[in-house]
Amino acid sequence: MTDPTTAFNGLPAHVWPRNATRCADGVVSIAGVPLTDIAERFGTPVMVVDEDDFRSRCRDMARAFGGAEHVHYASKAFLTRTIARWIDEEGLSLDAASLGELRIALLAGFPAERITAHGNNKDDEFLRACVDEGVGHVVLDSDQELERLDAIAGEAGRVQRVMVRVKPGIMAHTHEFIATSHEDQKFGFSLASGSAYRASEAAVRAANLELVGLHCHVGSQVFDARGFTAAADRVLELYSRIHSELGVELQDLDLGGGYGIAYTEDEQPLDVDAVARDLLSAVSKTAAELGIEAPNVLVEPGRAIAGPGTVTVYEVGTVKDVTVDEGTTRRYLSVDGGMSDNIRPALYGSAYEARVVSRNVGGRVTPTRIVGSHCESGDILVRDAEYPDDIRRGDLVAVAATGAYTYAMSSRYNAFNRPAIVSVRDGEVTPMMRRETIEDFLALEG
Amino acid sequence: MTDPTTAFNGLPAHVWPRNATRCADGVVSIAGVPLTDIAERFGTPVMVVDEDDFRSRCRDMARAFGGAEHVHYASKAFLTRTIARWIDEEGLSLDAASLGELRIALLAGFPAERITAHGNNKDDEFLRACVDEGVGHVVLDSDQELERLDAIAGEAGRVQRVMVRVKPGIMAHTHEFIATSHEDQKFGFSLASGSAYRASEAAVRAANLELVGLHCHVGSQVFDARGFTAAADRVLELYSRIHSELGVELQDLDLGGGYGIAYTEDEQPLDVDAVARDLLSAVSKTAAELGIEAPNVLVEPGRAIAGPGTVTVYEVGTVKDVTVDEGTTRRYLSVDGGMSDNIRPALYGSAYEARVVSRNVGGRVTPTRIVGSHCESGDILVRDAEYPDDIRRGDLVAVAATGAYTYAMSSRYNAFNRPAIVSVRDGEVTPMMRRETIEDFLALEG
Repeated sequence: MTDPTTAFNGLPAHVWPRNATRCADGVVSIAGVPLTDIAERFGTPVMVVDEDDFRSRCRDMARAFGGAEHVHYASKAFLTRTIARWIDEEGLSLDAASLGELRIALLAGFPAERITAHGNNKDDEFLRACVDEGVGHVVLDSDQELERLDAIAGEAGRVQRVMVRVKPGIMAHTHEFIATSHEDQKFGFSLASGSAYRASEAAVRAANLELVGLHCHVGSQVFDARGFTAAADRVLELYSRIHSELGVELQDLDLGGGYGIAYTEDEQPLDVDAVARDLLSAVSKTAAELGIEAPNVLVEPGRAIAGPGTVTVYEVGTVKDVTVDEGTTRRYLSVDGGMSDNIRPALYGSAYEARVVSRNVGGRVTPTRIVGSHCESGDILVRDAEYPDDIRRGDLVAVAATGAYTYAMSSRYNAFNRPAIVSVRDGEVTPMMRRETIEDFLALEG
Repeated sequence: MTDPTTAFNGLPAHVWPRNATRCADGVVSIAGVPLTDIAERFGTPVMVVDEDDFRSRCRDMARAFGGAEHVHYASKAFLTRTIARWIDEEGLSLDAASLGELRIALLAGFPAERITAHGNNKDDEFLRACVDEGVGHVVLDSDQELERLDAIAGEAGRVQRVMVRVKPGIMAHTHEFIATSHEDQKFGFSLASGSAYRASEAAVRAANLELVGLHCHVGSQVFDARGFTAAADRVLELYSRIHSELGVELQDLDLGGGYGIAYTEDEQPLDVDAVARDLLSAVSKTAAELGIEAPNVLVEPGRAIAGPGTVTVYEVGTVKDVTVDEGTTRRYLSVDGGMSDNIRPALYGSAYEARVVSRNVGGRVTPTRIVGSHCESGDILVRDAEYPDDIRRGDLVAVAATGAYTYAMSSRYNAFNRPAIVSVRDGEVTPMMRRETIEDFLALEG
């Protein structure tokens, strides 16, 4: 068994960025850049993105699914113009779930034809932007949207390529999946009720729309790959019906995202290669059984690309030992960020893993909680950990795997300023987002 | 029994802003300003603050607790410079839980001596600002902070007035309170373990600190007033001990916030007058029994002042009927905001109440959910409601009681722009915060 102190100084490869290493002096560096240097130069909290890690996960996904053209990056996980450029350079496509995401991608020079537009409530402005800019696919989410998009495309004298979002009646979550008729959520058209077929038929008949595929999404942080396969099977039956009844052969099958990553040492990321292999062969087999051409399988990873390569570096402030029960104490380490820069522990109960990155630490292992500086007792970053007890004020702590749904969901709670973000590659640091200031907030007044 | 359709068009006075009325044409106005006009001029989503409601709740609190000097507005609930000015003009004090909140208040011209500084992790910069600006009280939260503040005040040649934050071992939540030894959270010094006494003693002996009182906080959205009284009783025993052992008579007893408000028609706000009366008489009685002078009771309402007077106005987009079970459908109304402008339903499971404000609606009452436009199925604003079924695309819907912990915790998730805020008073509209833009986001790049 590993000594817990040794374990605490280690950086498990399946959780930490691919280019993270702890140097002989105890300082952790990413891509050759010591995190202490970054904290010194940019202050804390600061998010550090391992560019090579991010790009390599794009390539891993592309390889697993048979080419970059099969992979759409779900930009809601983490989007800046720099990130849109990386996605473009790696040849992936990009999902935009709002007009804002679409605009950021376009302003980064991302080719519109490789963008897919999502959303349960696309307004006319968003739909018009999709048509005018020549967005590759619009994923239709309601009858009203279908009619409006058809009209907007008609006015523009264009034919818009679309997919229909289907509720396959499959819910996948972490290590299980449920195949029920439960469809009580806002997205898509029900497969079971026939509304998905009717929407497909309407899309085929619409003068200014071209139906090229169907879309479904089974869940987030999925580790049980059978959910994807089960969803594919159900949706392919609709391909078969569309083929036989409408005479249309759909080319794309978009199975959404949800590829699970490891936030903590005891979790294991979903094996993307194995899932892709199983999924592609299942799709081929089912298509053959149904007597249709196997469609192109598209996937939409966000977290699995953006999550693991980024860490958030904080400075430890208040250290406080609290009596929990008679004879039991818990150490509270307060850091200079919290639920404003990472709402996921409070919002989803998510677990994270942290390390001191400014030195090797030792001492007796003690129950510890890492909390933020917000005026709220639920402001917890790492709830139940066992850390060596010599962690002290001024130490730098990094929380791993913070690339996805952190900055994207960050707030200014308690008038905190959102952190700076830098990327690192081959020993070089590049600023990505500067730290917000109070002046940024005050500029919105009036 | 009220007809549900009639009920839906009503605006229960304990939930909606004090100056909200539905006019003969069905349009809801606040302080004489039709919400349709505001939506037309500022777009949606837009937050509308009833200035007179906000100010009147300041005065209600001041009256209940025997004067404005007893009431500290917890600015974390909702803070802009305009709001800091209102608080100042009403004579209340103000709590700042971060350097950012302190700076915004000071930039609004708020007098530093009426500011109390909070926080579990105040860094030296924050403490130095408190001393240099002459902040009225710093609420000490750890031994380390006490030492650092003493040193910083000494360097500045000042004596800083302080309170010690005490964990009274009371947890109050909604309609119950628990008096246990459970103290497993980051704030304050334990009463039970003696650390609160030791911190008080250290503060008394510190050369550059003046201990003027003790502080405690029992919870949020409290409706059972006994929690406050029980906490006061426990903390007063410490006053007595400090008096007898250290020869110091403390003047202030800060009992924190937590005054519950009604978010929905079936909730009732805490009766502040009754609670104040009970609390003040209990403090006098306990003090007399302990043979000490009754301290000034200070309170820190945030939500109870800022919450009820503000509504968020959205426009209805997609309307979708979803089959929940055999024979049961639920209507999903998508609006043009969501968890980015109000995270509380997703974060705390909070209930809210909504009304169509652009007209009277009718029709059959049907199970309905109001959802946002974010790419996440948990993006729900009103989970379980019964609304008339003629609500349609383009209707304006307002969610009530959105003043507290909404804008303060708002994000840019899915690259949404934070909403505009306006205040209304006597038929006049005043812009408070303009809507964010994508350009505001892009300005942070690099």
